[in-house]
Amino acid sequence: MSTTPCYDELARHCLRLHRFDHLAAIGGWDRAAKMPPKGNDARSAALAELAGLMHRLRTDPSLRERLDRAEQEPLDELQRANLREIRRDWFNANALPESLVQARQLATSRCEHAWRQQRPANDWAGFVEHFREVLRVGREEARLLSEQSGLSKYDALMDRYEPGMTCATVDRVFGEVRQWLPDLIARATERQRSRPLIEPVGPFPVAQQRALCEAAMRLMGFDFSAGRLDVSAHPFSGGVPEDVRLTTRYNTEEFLISLMGTIHETGHGRYEQNLPRALLGQPVALARSMAIHESQSLSFEMQLGRSRAFVEQLAPLVAEHLGPQPAFEAENLWRLLTRVAPGRIRVDADEVTYPAHVILRYEIERPLIEGEIEAEDIPALWNAKMQELLGIDTTGDYANGPLQDVHWPEALFGYFPCYSLGAMYAAQWFAAMRRAVPDTDTRVAQGDFTPVFGWLDQHIWQQGSRWTTDELALRASGETLNPAHFKAHLEARYLG
Amino acid sequence: MSTTPCYDELARHCLRLHRFDHLAAIGGWDRAAKMPPKGNDARSAALAELAGLMHRLRTDPSLRERLDRAEQEPLDELQRANLREIRRDWFNANALPESLVQARQLATSRCEHAWRQQRPANDWAGFVEHFREVLRVGREEARLLSEQSGLSKYDALMDRYEPGMTCATVDRVFGEVRQWLPDLIARATERQRSRPLIEPVGPFPVAQQRALCEAAMRLMGFDFSAGRLDVSAHPFSGGVPEDVRLTTRYNTEEFLISLMGTIHETGHGRYEQNLPRALLGQPVALARSMAIHESQSLSFEMQLGRSRAFVEQLAPLVAEHLGPQPAFEAENLWRLLTRVAPGRIRVDADEVTYPAHVILRYEIERPLIEGEIEAEDIPALWNAKMQELLGIDTTGDYANGPLQDVHWPEALFGYFPCYSLGAMYAAQWFAAMRRAVPDTDTRVAQGDFTPVFGWLDQHIWQQGSRWTTDELALRASGETLNPAHFKAHLEARYLG
Ligand SMILES: [Zn+2]
Ligand SMILES: [Zn+2]
Repeated sequence: MSTTPCYDELARHCLRLHRFDHLAAIGGWDRAAKMPPKGNDARSAALAELAGLMHRLRTDPSLRERLDRAEQEPLDELQRANLREIRRDWFNANALPESLVQARQLATSRCEHAWRQQRPANDWAGFVEHFREVLRVGREEARLLSEQSGLSKYDALMDRYEPGMTCATVDRVFGEVRQWLPDLIARATERQRSRPLIEPVGPFPVAQQRALCEAAMRLMGFDFSAGRLDVSAHPFSGGVPEDVRLTTRYNTEEFLISLMGTIHETGHGRYEQNLPRALLGQPVALARSMAIHESQSLSFEMQLGRSRAFVEQLAPLVAEHLGPQPAFEAENLWRLLTRVAPGRIRVDADEVTYPAHVILRYEIERPLIEGEIEAEDIPALWNAKMQELLGIDTTGDYANGPLQDVHWPEALFGYFPCYSLGAMYAAQWFAAMRRAVPDTDTRVAQGDFTPVFGWLDQHIWQQGSRWTTDELALRASGETLNPAHFKAHLEARYLG
Repeated sequence: MSTTPCYDELARHCLRLHRFDHLAAIGGWDRAAKMPPKGNDARSAALAELAGLMHRLRTDPSLRERLDRAEQEPLDELQRANLREIRRDWFNANALPESLVQARQLATSRCEHAWRQQRPANDWAGFVEHFREVLRVGREEARLLSEQSGLSKYDALMDRYEPGMTCATVDRVFGEVRQWLPDLIARATERQRSRPLIEPVGPFPVAQQRALCEAAMRLMGFDFSAGRLDVSAHPFSGGVPEDVRLTTRYNTEEFLISLMGTIHETGHGRYEQNLPRALLGQPVALARSMAIHESQSLSFEMQLGRSRAFVEQLAPLVAEHLGPQPAFEAENLWRLLTRVAPGRIRVDADEVTYPAHVILRYEIERPLIEGEIEAEDIPALWNAKMQELLGIDTTGDYANGPLQDVHWPEALFGYFPCYSLGAMYAAQWFAAMRRAVPDTDTRVAQGDFTPVFGWLDQHIWQQGSRWTTDELALRASGETLNPAHFKAHLEARYLG
């Protein structure tokens, strides 16, 4: 008889969830990438039925005692890490009452539905009508999660996406960035003002762009025997670790957004494709967190993908698939990929101005959740911070202001910081790998990405959720999150 | 309070199954059409987990009493028909013990796996080694189903695919066909001997073939906002009524197989797309049976698709997408589509010789199941019947003989008759619609398919499983299955 009966039972429970999750992931991917419009109602009903089943499994009352008993069983280190992650999943599934989950569903779907019209109409007043209820639900979630976890309210929300991350850390890190970022943006844009730049000349047919994107994915080691690239309105990395489904979208007038977006998703995809296989189906074998996931996509898109060395390899691929142009010469292509230009839209931002957008959102949604400000206060704060951080006057422009993202209509409070924390971790990883392999950039320029992918595989991908984020960072790079590497990276690339 | 509590409970049970079935269907379609190879193990595990869940739901012990009580509740006619179908599903799920279901799974997967090597190697002796166990399982299933249903053994197997169909009917119908078929084949081939025929000249690029197939689907009324066409190794009609997923495959040297195969699947697809919506999610809203399903695909592929009138519409589409050729003139294209040539392979057979293949299989698998012959007796019987029905000597050719189909390795005993019963029903439907709308063919030649699709929609598609097959045929055409229409159709098309 097993000496770890409760742990074994929990592991079987996780494996079942993993398998049902597989079908939910493929059903969701198909909805975004393949499903014809009239299939939507039936698909929604089917996915909701499965979600209901999974929720019942996750909230099975017998789990509480089983978790407590498993703690007493003789587990090895990996099993203990798995048990920690099982408990985390259990906590998140059980922390909120069904009535609040339903209220959230109702409020966010109403708000998001209205937002799709209100954003193009620049209708802030209309938006606030629905958003108040979303905010009420978000605050109530924060209150309950905070009570049960002992974390502060906003910390409790962040914990769902980035376990262990706290406002104390974010304040410290974003506070530092705030000190030097506006000056760095000013110096970088000034420096680029006189730089010659040749614009690419379209159109770029979709079939050629697709071939280019797939070639770039191959160049970056994506395993097409365990994944695909398709098209969806909103690009994402979906599927399951055993079968990764990436999407992009094509615009015949512009190819770099799709190409670099695909490289971004390839970073997410390779993380998933290379998660540890030993305990596959268990939470410990899943990706660590959202910030760490984003650190992989940004390692691919920003650290590697926009490095001068990598562009040596990318430029010939672009010319091969889209036909040669002066704009596709490596030096010019790199300049196109490293243009710095403050703007209103987060998702269009370059890597230098991007953190400003995230800091702004954090500085608004945190007091929103803590109850220090109300929805009505957002526009004034938004305008002040855009002026302060990026020098842009956004007065009266709600569409490209607080209405630009789907996160708030969807009550995804606590998520935004992950984007910039990911960028900072990515810089930290590249600093560590350059210490480990000093000729990394030389080898990348020659087409040998082993120093990069080998390091990521060993230190991030193969670790899954074995360690907390802090432990992972410490083991990988010798220190926990340190934004100095991000600053050094930006200075080297944009002021060097 | 509801006056039909047990019925309502059963309906909710069916709706849950319908939703889970949706995810199984999309997961299965994706596996065949999109999934990269390394995703297979995880997909198999996920689909098996879902199948296990659905089996537990279907075999819930409380269903028996609920079914009995629902019978006593005040149901309307449609609800009563639904209850009949729920009971049928319940019977099929509960009739066989778990141990036999597992034995079947094991025996068929072993046999099919070996068959994939044995067929190209023409290795009959090797095949029989594994097939004996498949046959043993098939006989045991037949025995148990027969005991519980009161049907004869082979009837009990057929009943799973074509409820109510019996050997008495099949013997009568196939017996009639056997009388006139060899002579009709001889006269048709003799008549075609001197007919001038121009062969199409390839290659036919895949992109053009795909556009042609999609145009043909549109011509035949397939709703692309509720379905798709993709590629798979073995073409099929999958998905769900709300989102129909058809597949085909392309060969650049030959386009008619893919085109007519797509038209065949379009018949299946339109049946699914036009099932009644009122009780969607309930068994009564599903397709009647496999023979009726095949009667729709063959209505599209054979009755309509190879009619001289329809080819007037198809020919310009072919020329438009593949470029004009003398072979694509309507009269020549029609001759290509109506060529009669006895051959060894069922799936390659024309509509005149096809029934011979099915009769042969029926006349072998029925005594196999009844225990009158053994696996070792198959080749001699096969050769004798091929000689008798099609005049072909197949001695020693197992690969293109009893090893050609996957049905026997998969223990699909009782399925084969559905193919030819479907062809006969299709002829019966077209005779009925020509009585209802005498100028059907004139209108079809002018591109107006309303008489065909309107009749099928009203009499077949919208009926779902409301009636038994016999009642459905009687209401639609004034008589139950009558093979005289099939004979008249073949004579008119091939001897007329
Ligand atoms: Zn990302
Ligand atoms: Zn068919």
